[in-house]
Amino acid sequence: MKIFCSKDALLSGVNAVQRAVSNKSTLPVLQGILIKSEHQSLQFAATDLEMGIRCEVPSQVSEEGTMVVPAKLFTDVVRKLPDTEITLEERDQSITICYYQSEIVLNGYDPEEYPLLPDLIDPISFTLPTIIFKNMIRQTIFSCALEENRPVFNGTLMQIEGSMIRLVATDTHRLAYSIAEIQNPEQSHFSGIIPAKTLSEIYRLLRDEDEVLNISFSDTQVVFQFGSIYLVSRLIEGQFPNYKQVIPQTCETKVNLSVKSFLEAVERASLLSRDKSGTNIIRINVEENELKIDQTSELGKISEQISVEMEGKNVVIAFNAKFLIDALKVIDSDKIIFELSGPFSPGVMRPLDNPNYLYLVLPVRTHN
Amino acid sequence: MKIFCSKDALLSGVNAVQRAVSNKSTLPVLQGILIKSEHQSLQFAATDLEMGIRCEVPSQVSEEGTMVVPAKLFTDVVRKLPDTEITLEERDQSITICYYQSEIVLNGYDPEEYPLLPDLIDPISFTLPTIIFKNMIRQTIFSCALEENRPVFNGTLMQIEGSMIRLVATDTHRLAYSIAEIQNPEQSHFSGIIPAKTLSEIYRLLRDEDEVLNISFSDTQVVFQFGSIYLVSRLIEGQFPNYKQVIPQTCETKVNLSVKSFLEAVERASLLSRDKSGTNIIRINVEENELKIDQTSELGKISEQISVEMEGKNVVIAFNAKFLIDALKVIDSDKIIFELSGPFSPGVMRPLDNPNYLYLVLPVRTHN
Repeated sequence: MKIFCSKDALLSGVNAVQRAVSNKSTLPVLQGILIKSEHQSLQFAATDLEMGIRCEVPSQVSEEGTMVVPAKLFTDVVRKLPDTEITLEERDQSITICYYQSEIVLNGYDPEEYPLLPDLIDPISFTLPTIIFKNMIRQTIFSCALEENRPVFNGTLMQIEGSMIRLVATDTHRLAYSIAEIQNPEQSHFSGIIPAKTLSEIYRLLRDEDEVLNISFSDTQVVFQFGSIYLVSRLIEGQFPNYKQVIPQTCETKVNLSVKSFLEAVERASLLSRDKSGTNIIRINVEENELKIDQTSELGKISEQISVEMEGKNVVIAFNAKFLIDALKVIDSDKIIFELSGPFSPGVMRPLDNPNYLYLVLPVRTHN
Repeated sequence: MKIFCSKDALLSGVNAVQRAVSNKSTLPVLQGILIKSEHQSLQFAATDLEMGIRCEVPSQVSEEGTMVVPAKLFTDVVRKLPDTEITLEERDQSITICYYQSEIVLNGYDPEEYPLLPDLIDPISFTLPTIIFKNMIRQTIFSCALEENRPVFNGTLMQIEGSMIRLVATDTHRLAYSIAEIQNPEQSHFSGIIPAKTLSEIYRLLRDEDEVLNISFSDTQVVFQFGSIYLVSRLIEGQFPNYKQVIPQTCETKVNLSVKSFLEAVERASLLSRDKSGTNIIRINVEENELKIDQTSELGKISEQISVEMEGKNVVIAFNAKFLIDALKVIDSDKIIFELSGPFSPGVMRPLDNPNYLYLVLPVRTHN
C-alpha cells in the first residue's frame, strides 16, 4: 500500500475515528486505527466493538492496500507532521511516513486481525437536519445515568413514530424529553436505546456544514451517516421505563419565569447550601407572584427573590440544585413554565415557546 | 462600611488578587481577601506572606471601612452575580451583598488580624515598557527549577546595571538569559532573586494596555506597579550561581538553522525516544550542512534530516528533548545559531536577530 496526502487530511481522519479506539481491550489490534486505500480514497476506521467509526479523506492512491497503525502514537506523530505532502507506505506491517528528506517507521498490526465494521442488512433509514438532532442530543444527554449498574439508563431512548423522532433520557431522578418532526414517507417504526457515549461522539463530530444526517437501524444496531463519516453503534438491550406514565398530565401550580434569573439564583444559592455529602439541596417557595429561595449554612445565608407570574396554589418544594442547573443551562428559551403539584410530586419545566421539549425532576424530601 | 459598585468591578478586583490568597496557611484570616473603602476608591488586597497584591477598582463609597471576605466563596459568588449595581455592606464582620430584591450574607474575618502589605522604605525605582518585561519573563521562567530543595533555583535573578536589566533562570541543567535596555538616570543598582511564582503572576496580570511597568526594590523586597495593581514580593535569599562563568565564550561548531524545522523534528523524534524513566534523549548529528536525528525504539524508528548552514567541526551530541523544546517554543526569531563544542560541552542557542537572549543547555552522556 502506498498513498500521498496532506497532513490535514491525515489529521481529519485520525480526529474523526480516535474516540472509537479501544482503551482497555484485550485484543491488541483494537488499539490501532485501520487505514485502507482503494480507488482514489483513503478510509480510516476504528472500533471498540460497541461503536465503530469510518471516515474518508482525500488522497492520491499509488498502491491499494490496508494497514493498522498504533492509534495513539500515529495520532501524536500526525499532529506534529509539517504542512506538506506526506507519503504513507506499508510493507509487512511496517508503516513508513515520509516528508521532506525525513521518515518515520512505525510497527503496525496485522490488518487481517482487525474486525470489520458491520454494514446493516436491509436497514430502515430516514434523514433529518443535523442542527435539529444536535440540539436534541444537547438537551437530553445530560440526564443519562453515569453509574453503570443499570445499562438502560446509560443510554437515550430513540423512537421513530409516524413523522416524529423522540429522544428520552433519564437517570430515575430526572427525565429529559425532546421531539422533532421528520420526513418519514415509509412510515418506518423504531424504538431503541442508544449508548450515551455514541450520542456524545455524534454531537462532537456533527458540524454545522453537515446539513443532513442519515440514520438507519436494524434490531440491534444503528448507523449515523453525515459528511464523510459513517458511525455504527450497538443498541443497549433491555426495557426502557414507561416515560409516558411518569409525566404528570395536570398540575396544581404553574409558574412562568425567566430561565436566566432562575438559573443564576439557583447557582448562587447552591454556593451556600452544600451539605456534607456534596449534594446541594435548594428549597423553593412560590407565593404571590414571587419565587423565593432561602438558604442558611455555616458559611452564611442567601435570600433570593424573583418576580414570576403564577397560577394556582402556593408551594414549597426542594430540589437537588444540580438537576435544576443542568436543565436550565440547555434550555434556549427566555422563559419556562415550571409546573408543580405540592412538595412530593415531580416538577416539570416546559420552554414557553417550544412545545417539543420537557424536563421532569423529582423533588427531595427535607425535614424542615 | 458600605459601597456601591458594578459586578465587573468586583470581578476585576477578586481576579487580580486571588492568586495571592494563601492555600495552606495556618493563619485562617489569610484565606480571605481584604476589601477597604476610602475616599471614592475600593481596594482589594491579598497575601500569602511571600507575595501580596493590591488592586483598586471604581466604586461609590457611602461609608468608609474595611472587611475581610472568605476568598473562595466570595469569588464564586461574585462570578454568579447579575450584571447590575451591587451593594456591599459590612457590620460586625458580617458581609451583605445586595442586588435586585435579593441578598447574600457571608461570615467574614476580623480585618484587624489581616497583615498589612509592606510599603518599601526609600525604594529605588525605574520603569520599563510592560511588553518588554512580559517577553523577558516568558523567555526565561521555564528554566527555573520546580523541585524545592534549593530555593535559589526556584527564582529568576534580576539585575539592574547601568542602563540594562537582566533576567537569568537556571535549574542547573539549562540556563535562560535575557537583557533589555532601561532608562536608569540615577544609575541605580540591584541584584535579587525573584520567586518564579511572583513572575508568573506578573506575567498573568500584565495586560498590553498597561504600557508602563514600575519596579522598585529594597534589600529584601521588590514591588511591581502597573495599571491599578501593586504587587510586592519577598526576594529569595542565597547566592545565585555565577552564570557568566558557565556561558562559553568560544565554540567549535556554529549551526545556523530554522527554529520551526528544528522544533518540529525534535518533537517528532521525542515521540519515538521515550526511555523507561520518561526522559526523551535525542541524539543530534551535525555534518556537511545537515542536522540529523536518528532514533530507534521498540515502537519504530525515525530519521529526521534538516538542511543547515554550519561552520567548524562535525559533532554528535545528545540532549534531553524537553530542554530543547522548551526553549525553541519561546524563541520568536525564525533562525538561531546553535553553538556546540563536542559531545560534552554545553550547547548555546542565540536567536539570529536578537543579541539580547541566549539559552544554554547541558548535553546528556549516552553510551553508544
